[in-house]
Amino acid sequence: MQLGLIGLGKMGGNMRERIRRAGHTVVGYDRDPALSDVGSLKELVGSLAAPRVVWVMVPAGGPTQSTVDELAELLEPGDVVVDGGNSRWTDDEKHAAELATKGIGFVDCGVSGGVWGLQNGYALMYGGSDADIAKVQPIFEALKPEGDFGSVHAGKVGAGHFAKMVHNGIEYAMMQAYAEGWELLEAVDSVENVREIFRSWKEGTVIRSWLLDLAVDALDKDQHLGKLKGYAADSGEGRWTVEAAIDHAVPLPAITASLFARFSSRQDDSPQMKMIAALRNEFGGHAVESK
Amino acid sequence: MQLGLIGLGKMGGNMRERIRRAGHTVVGYDRDPALSDVGSLKELVGSLAAPRVVWVMVPAGGPTQSTVDELAELLEPGDVVVDGGNSRWTDDEKHAAELATKGIGFVDCGVSGGVWGLQNGYALMYGGSDADIAKVQPIFEALKPEGDFGSVHAGKVGAGHFAKMVHNGIEYAMMQAYAEGWELLEAVDSVENVREIFRSWKEGTVIRSWLLDLAVDALDKDQHLGKLKGYAADSGEGRWTVEAAIDHAVPLPAITASLFARFSSRQDDSPQMKMIAALRNEFGGHAVESK
Amino acid sequence: MQLGLIGLGKMGGNMRERIRRAGHTVVGYDRDPALSDVGSLKELVGSLAAPRVVWVMVPAGGPTQSTVDELAELLEPGDVVVDGGNSRWTDDEKHAAELATKGIGFVDCGVSGGVWGLQNGYALMYGGSDADIAKVQPIFEALKPEGDFGSVHAGKVGAGHFAKMVHNGIEYAMMQAYAEGWELLEAVDSVENVREIFRSWKEGTVIRSWLLDLAVDALDKDQHLGKLKGYAADSGEGRWTVEAAIDHAVPLPAITASLFARFSSRQDDSPQMKMIAALRNEFGGHAVESK
Amino acid sequence: MQLGLIGLGKMGGNMRERIRRAGHTVVGYDRDPALSDVGSLKELVGSLAAPRVVWVMVPAGGPTQSTVDELAELLEPGDVVVDGGNSRWTDDEKHAAELATKGIGFVDCGVSGGVWGLQNGYALMYGGSDADIAKVQPIFEALKPEGDFGSVHAGKVGAGHFAKMVHNGIEYAMMQAYAEGWELLEAVDSVENVREIFRSWKEGTVIRSWLLDLAVDALDKDQHLGKLKGYAADSGEGRWTVEAAIDHAVPLPAITASLFARFSSRQDDSPQMKMIAALRNEFGGHAVESK
Repeated sequence: MQLGLIGLGKMGGNMRERIRRAGHTVVGYDRDPALSDVGSLKELVGSLAAPRVVWVMVPAGGPTQSTVDELAELLEPGDVVVDGGNSRWTDDEKHAAELATKGIGFVDCGVSGGVWGLQNGYALMYGGSDADIAKVQPIFEALKPEGDFGSVHAGKVGAGHFAKMVHNGIEYAMMQAYAEGWELLEAVDSVENVREIFRSWKEGTVIRSWLLDLAVDALDKDQHLGKLKGYAADSGEGRWTVEAAIDHAVPLPAITASLFARFSSRQDDSPQMKMIAALRNEFGGHAVESK
Repeated sequence: MQLGLIGLGKMGGNMRERIRRAGHTVVGYDRDPALSDVGSLKELVGSLAAPRVVWVMVPAGGPTQSTVDELAELLEPGDVVVDGGNSRWTDDEKHAAELATKGIGFVDCGVSGGVWGLQNGYALMYGGSDADIAKVQPIFEALKPEGDFGSVHAGKVGAGHFAKMVHNGIEYAMMQAYAEGWELLEAVDSVENVREIFRSWKEGTVIRSWLLDLAVDALDKDQHLGKLKGYAADSGEGRWTVEAAIDHAVPLPAITASLFARFSSRQDDSPQMKMIAALRNEFGGHAVESK
Repeated sequence: MQLGLIGLGKMGGNMRERIRRAGHTVVGYDRDPALSDVGSLKELVGSLAAPRVVWVMVPAGGPTQSTVDELAELLEPGDVVVDGGNSRWTDDEKHAAELATKGIGFVDCGVSGGVWGLQNGYALMYGGSDADIAKVQPIFEALKPEGDFGSVHAGKVGAGHFAKMVHNGIEYAMMQAYAEGWELLEAVDSVENVREIFRSWKEGTVIRSWLLDLAVDALDKDQHLGKLKGYAADSGEGRWTVEAAIDHAVPLPAITASLFARFSSRQDDSPQMKMIAALRNEFGGHAVESK
Repeated sequence: MQLGLIGLGKMGGNMRERIRRAGHTVVGYDRDPALSDVGSLKELVGSLAAPRVVWVMVPAGGPTQSTVDELAELLEPGDVVVDGGNSRWTDDEKHAAELATKGIGFVDCGVSGGVWGLQNGYALMYGGSDADIAKVQPIFEALKPEGDFGSVHAGKVGAGHFAKMVHNGIEYAMMQAYAEGWELLEAVDSVENVREIFRSWKEGTVIRSWLLDLAVDALDKDQHLGKLKGYAADSGEGRWTVEAAIDHAVPLPAITASLFARFSSRQDDSPQMKMIAALRNEFGGHAVESK
């Protein structure tokens, strides 16, 4: 089938390649003419036969919004827009409603896979009506990993991004779990081979996982991670996970602890611990490290 | 080689079977004569040629202590005792010191694998001197999973149980990660296929793992886990992990949150939340649910 | 001076009384004619001499929004609206901008004090321009507690509600602190007089506070809080505090833990702990409590 | 009455002064001859009439143990030893049992008050038998604050130190509560007067407390705490509180979060966050700050 694909960065470019390998025609557009197959969104839409499927793979927020706005003007009833970017699930309903006024369908799709996706396939979580999703299905089949798993119709519009967001929230806490364990093992004198302990866990243990494999890869490059700074950015999806949990009164202690650990990692000096130091000084004359 | 194996419960019995399949001779002892190959520890020791290796697989604490005490009397210099039970790592140094006075070696070994170990092998983390471990090595080879992973010489005496304890601590937080994500997905109306979302994550995602596979198995049996109570015991190793972290001033927010979630799950009514309710009533006249 | 006061519930009614006792004229409006001094907002506005100060004390969200909308039509340039309700600080800028198009000023004011306010005064945190606040100042003086403390110009529009929101977030964690300590003391056999321990802390300790006094009052009524259920609602401001922290990448582990403890207290059975139970059952054959 | 007081450091010296002001006779001993009233423990014991009360105010652990050992040799049946230091409650039963073999009584006493105690009195929490406590009662009366509060017979031997330990655990979380709120207020642009917000809370709010007063004092000295480092030691009692909670399966999320925040504050670079950074690098090619 034909697919219009907007956004040909590292992620979008690899996806185009995987879809083409599966035998589909991809007309790609990117603001960078060196990457783009066409000169404009109008040209992209014009080059596709109706009913069209256009996959948006641009940054969440403003760029996605303006692309949806433009497509609402260019597409026709019966066409479908897929938002495969990292949009917040609360944006999906807005985009779906905007496009629905023109008779254009909408599917949101959370995509996982990163730099490994071209080779191994991308995990896909999508939301929308059965009818809209049926139009995109061949592309989902091309992108997903081989085998029985890796793609799911998660629910209504928004459910795809929501599921991907929760996936990332779980990821935060799993990473934190290994990280806490690693720090504790490194802290104890009688434990001499932390890297080899991690390696041994790759088989026969309850905690074997792909993330564990990556941890071993990282330790093989830098046994005590001495070249790294204990600094971790966060991509927004962990924050949204906690906010969604608060909206639904769901306690998420481990995921939230993982998010807060990242916040703390980015502070050179902790304001709140200055206040702790100040209070200790006031009531106890405890020594406080002055700068 | 010959092995004396003390404790032939579900775990010990399966381990005996796996070692025998590897071609070794196992003389087993259990308090239950129906399970035991010999009538006493003395008989067990007498049936082995020096230097003997005796593997203790009995409950941590008193039973392990009394077994070590008895073996200290029965064994000879150059023999080795392996504690493969769930002993706290702080007990290992005591046992090693006690046996060392008689010239008997000691190895502690954390064993993971549960009901899957007979078939797939047991993950082994052991601590002790190179010389003592060399005497046990053929048994480790028989027990461990096939392939390059699954066993490790973690460090000095105590390091094996310490590594296994940390493994369990990590396990707590990984389980909590999936559990939090599952509850959040179940709480949101637009998400319709939580079980299928979990299933889809088995390939192509960052969070694929053996625990995730088990979660899917559980959801296949009981899609919304309606037959279960939200009640989780803890085995002690999570507690020890947090205590070890406190001893070393290592922050473990996610693992500790996971432990506390289990504590809370076992309370019919939370005393601390009674106090919260009482305080809200005092200052605000907030409605409080009376029993 | 004259004040228009909209919303004469328990809180608004007591505030009217305190303002009148200070010698000011209050024209009150409430949807309930039995409480109201006038028949309509229009009548309220008509009864005040310009420049008018109208204090809105109605539920946050829709009721506050519709009152602001109506006042925007009725008031004149130079008048000032004070939102003394529990609005989210993010609403304040919207309300200020809406009123500014008509030349009407806006002040947001977080009010603390609850049922004790009539007698002891209300703590006030307000945000807005110096000029707008100057017009309201006599009312602030009437409402605040006697003495040097209890009212503050916190910053720009929104800062008042923000400060009150953070006050409540701190309150959550302080309550949780006492509650955790109380539960631990109650759990230990050798500790026999938990209520008397709390009482003794009222003087000479680092943790003496008004909340502690309230805890003692509650324990005097019900020594082991046996008449209460461990169930705690949350008013929204704790949630907003955590969301604001996430927006600013500020870690709030204790306040968030306190919020999550309330969420958990309202669950009859924890979905996430069902998943923990299910996983334990899968890998270990651990006994799980069936319903 | 007469009191023997061992340990005349800052704390013990001030206590001696307060007890003397109340009209009692204090014979003090310290290893530092410049502080000591007598040359040895033997001389101290010899200078008191039976039944003697000897108050031990030396560092927990070894120094307290050796002092108790020595007193067990020097005192007579009917005498009472008070441990007023910061001993772990689990040591109290050992000390009581050791002294009981000689017919010597034992009382444990947690003391709060710090540098303010000489003037305002010390909060006292003590454990032991009614008979032993009766012998110490006049000293308790001299040390405690004036008024109805500030001292309590908490329960059996160990309950005094346990209550003091929980007091400190509560203190950790209260300090953390204010610290988190302060950091959040400082992080938001529209909030302009954080110090004045804190000051305003001293009256009329739910969160007014002595610790809040101290926070205001600290901010008056250094408005944004710019002279302090965000570094907080911990005294051991927070750790013991969490360990006691784990022993009794009591969840302490806020207190534990407060303890972990202190641990993190003392790390120049977080090992666990290095692992998070390493994992992000492996799966996503996320930029990681190299040293």
